[in-house]
Amino acid sequence: MPILKGKDILHGNQFTKKDVETILKVASEFERELKKKDTLPLLKGKILATLFYEPSTRTRLSFEAAIQRLGGGAIGMGAVESSSVAKGETLVDTIRTVSQYADVIVLRHPRTGSAKEAAEATSIPVINAGDGAGQHPTQALLDVYTIRQELGTLKNLTISLVGDLKNGRTVHALVEVLSLFQSKLYFVSPDLLRMPEEITSNLRGKGVKIVETEDMMEAARASHLIYMTRIQKERFADLSEYEKVKGSFIIDQTFLEKLNKKVTILHPLPRVDEIHPDVDAYPGAAYFRQMRNGIFIRMALLAMIFGKR
Amino acid sequence: MPILKGKDILHGNQFTKKDVETILKVASEFERELKKKDTLPLLKGKILATLFYEPSTRTRLSFEAAIQRLGGGAIGMGAVESSSVAKGETLVDTIRTVSQYADVIVLRHPRTGSAKEAAEATSIPVINAGDGAGQHPTQALLDVYTIRQELGTLKNLTISLVGDLKNGRTVHALVEVLSLFQSKLYFVSPDLLRMPEEITSNLRGKGVKIVETEDMMEAARASHLIYMTRIQKERFADLSEYEKVKGSFIIDQTFLEKLNKKVTILHPLPRVDEIHPDVDAYPGAAYFRQMRNGIFIRMALLAMIFGKR
Amino acid sequence: MPILKGKDILHGNQFTKKDVETILKVASEFERELKKKDTLPLLKGKILATLFYEPSTRTRLSFEAAIQRLGGGAIGMGAVESSSVAKGETLVDTIRTVSQYADVIVLRHPRTGSAKEAAEATSIPVINAGDGAGQHPTQALLDVYTIRQELGTLKNLTISLVGDLKNGRTVHALVEVLSLFQSKLYFVSPDLLRMPEEITSNLRGKGVKIVETEDMMEAARASHLIYMTRIQKERFADLSEYEKVKGSFIIDQTFLEKLNKKVTILHPLPRVDEIHPDVDAYPGAAYFRQMRNGIFIRMALLAMIFGKR
Repeated sequence: MPILKGKDILHGNQFTKKDVETILKVASEFERELKKKDTLPLLKGKILATLFYEPSTRTRLSFEAAIQRLGGGAIGMGAVESSSVAKGETLVDTIRTVSQYADVIVLRHPRTGSAKEAAEATSIPVINAGDGAGQHPTQALLDVYTIRQELGTLKNLTISLVGDLKNGRTVHALVEVLSLFQSKLYFVSPDLLRMPEEITSNLRGKGVKIVETEDMMEAARASHLIYMTRIQKERFADLSEYEKVKGSFIIDQTFLEKLNKKVTILHPLPRVDEIHPDVDAYPGAAYFRQMRNGIFIRMALLAMIFGKR
Repeated sequence: MPILKGKDILHGNQFTKKDVETILKVASEFERELKKKDTLPLLKGKILATLFYEPSTRTRLSFEAAIQRLGGGAIGMGAVESSSVAKGETLVDTIRTVSQYADVIVLRHPRTGSAKEAAEATSIPVINAGDGAGQHPTQALLDVYTIRQELGTLKNLTISLVGDLKNGRTVHALVEVLSLFQSKLYFVSPDLLRMPEEITSNLRGKGVKIVETEDMMEAARASHLIYMTRIQKERFADLSEYEKVKGSFIIDQTFLEKLNKKVTILHPLPRVDEIHPDVDAYPGAAYFRQMRNGIFIRMALLAMIFGKR
Repeated sequence: MPILKGKDILHGNQFTKKDVETILKVASEFERELKKKDTLPLLKGKILATLFYEPSTRTRLSFEAAIQRLGGGAIGMGAVESSSVAKGETLVDTIRTVSQYADVIVLRHPRTGSAKEAAEATSIPVINAGDGAGQHPTQALLDVYTIRQELGTLKNLTISLVGDLKNGRTVHALVEVLSLFQSKLYFVSPDLLRMPEEITSNLRGKGVKIVETEDMMEAARASHLIYMTRIQKERFADLSEYEKVKGSFIIDQTFLEKLNKKVTILHPLPRVDEIHPDVDAYPGAAYFRQMRNGIFIRMALLAMIFGKR
């Protein structure tokens, strides 16, 4: 029975280890096939709707490209100001509307829990493309796809997650998936932006080894991989707090020379200044390859949701 | 000879009774076919352009989905601020431009009469998707499609139209179409937002029975169907007038219990608070089914405009 | 060997006379074919990404229509405010991102030189759709296509370029292409908005005869064709300077009567008031035909970039 058929994609903790392995396998198959041709028309006639209540480049465009490479089409709500949201429509009413026109909905919304609320309001599958500081499960899947591609395995890795661990939905989703693979995790953040206690204790409960620190060098020395994140200005109610912590953790040539060992670097992007452009040519800098993998993972998820793999 | 081939869709009064019946028949056929498959590729290679100078979710997305389900594609001007409108281009020049690239134009614009002006500026068909407080004929057609679906007939019905009858383009278009079917109409609105005298007297001239009232309960008791509309904040120059009348007419559980008889409820959506969400589960609440019908009607209109039905 | 295969389209000076002739030939072939059918599916499965950091109607929509008429699809970044640009992402990072999802990028950006910068950041072809006051080469090609169509030849023509020659990227690109065809050029502008000295002397070096004047009538009398441009408010840092020069040069019925000879009029559009609408019916008013040619030229360029012509 196809594992994701008709399902929502809402949270990093919804997948079993077997699910993740199957998704990565399908993505990997699609990556190979796309080297030979431009499209894999498994979803001809299917319409994907994008509802982005927050800015996006990567996630929205990669979903739109993914559905097109699968032979389907996309429709998009566009900017919130140009939609009926501007007339006061609730999320639930908008979701019910779009459900009448599309076969799957991709939602980004500033409120944690909004994707679940949306999924409950409709019978068509909803994919959470970021709900506030909550989750971003398709990013987590492309992240582990990249980790396996770069390091050859997902098992027994030591990984540093750096930056805004409090508000960062990508790391919130990623640690759920990593918890399936016996990882040791370093949580590197300013005190103000620590991983929420609830997540940390839940992970520990699942047997994940966690070290919390403000020392990025110490963490990097112990790690196979550093997952950098942006300090997200838009999540701060008080901008003076943002000013205090922005630029806390930066990877540049100086840092890499001091580290003096090979490390793999990921970042969900966009970056502001937490990874200096002079790092881009470093062999371990995998964040542009990571980005490309978004297409394969999202194609895999869409194909599986429609029971085509 | 195909009745809409090459024609503009501008005004609710442009259709004969026979036209309406043919359009509903085609829409009904498409509804049946879409239960069996995702697309009906009658319009392969056709390009629909959306020009929305005012916010929209339903109308734009349902047109984009409709052309895709017919095998064609869509291009969109996007937000006014991102287009040459921002450089001072007139509507007529923009229409002439888009006419060079697309096969049909769907226009929403804040000025009454703008759709007609657009149609005169180009030789390709223009579909009026709302011109200020003027008309919204494709909405009227999906409304009568829904009425017939819910009530089994369009003839000899008593219908209450409630809310902003002065500025509401959906009701202005709907009454034109209903006037073809021996309806009795209750116009329920605050005094400030009454149906324009010109429309009312024109309808009476066609033999439509009209009762104007501010008593929604009285109207509802006499009616087979209540057509609610939003008090549209964006049409008020003076916001204090908006404050006076918003929330004048609300359907909720209490109202329905007091009414104590089955009634069908439509709404063009979005709603703000004129229909309480606790009404959504009421069997007569047909506004989400109504919305879905937008796809079938718009597919029917597009297919007919290109002579494919 | 296909002349544009895999190439960027960045600058009017990148084309040889032979290149231009080949592009016009392909465009002309496509124009003929599109009279017979809606699409020429040479680019099935190809995805074009539009990144417009400045407003556009014509250029973006004609590229989107062009790729669709060739059987491919489009994805778009949409408004800058709704993209990761709003989170502080650099142009280079955005380009690298979009390169992972699309097969060709069409970029409009307010900074001169940005298209070249973008092309250097990616291995997929970049098409410059306007870089600040720099270049707009696809416009130049559709302009010469129109000139040849209207006048039967490109050789030995006298052409007046009128308006904002300092900031006008369309004229900066056009003069590069015209310089291949023994043109005599009148540069008609207010003193403040003269063609940059660098461009003028470079053209003279190539043997182009140039007359600089503020007298539009004198220039028009000597010319086969007048190329009008808009005084672009958005290029003025000091709005009082804009007020001084706007409306300097206007073509209307009075001007044409005084001129008293047939002349062909082009304009890249949008216009504000530099060509009065009463000129639109004048047989030499070719600016709407010019606009239509954008489709054929852009289809030709896309097909050639992918080696399909």
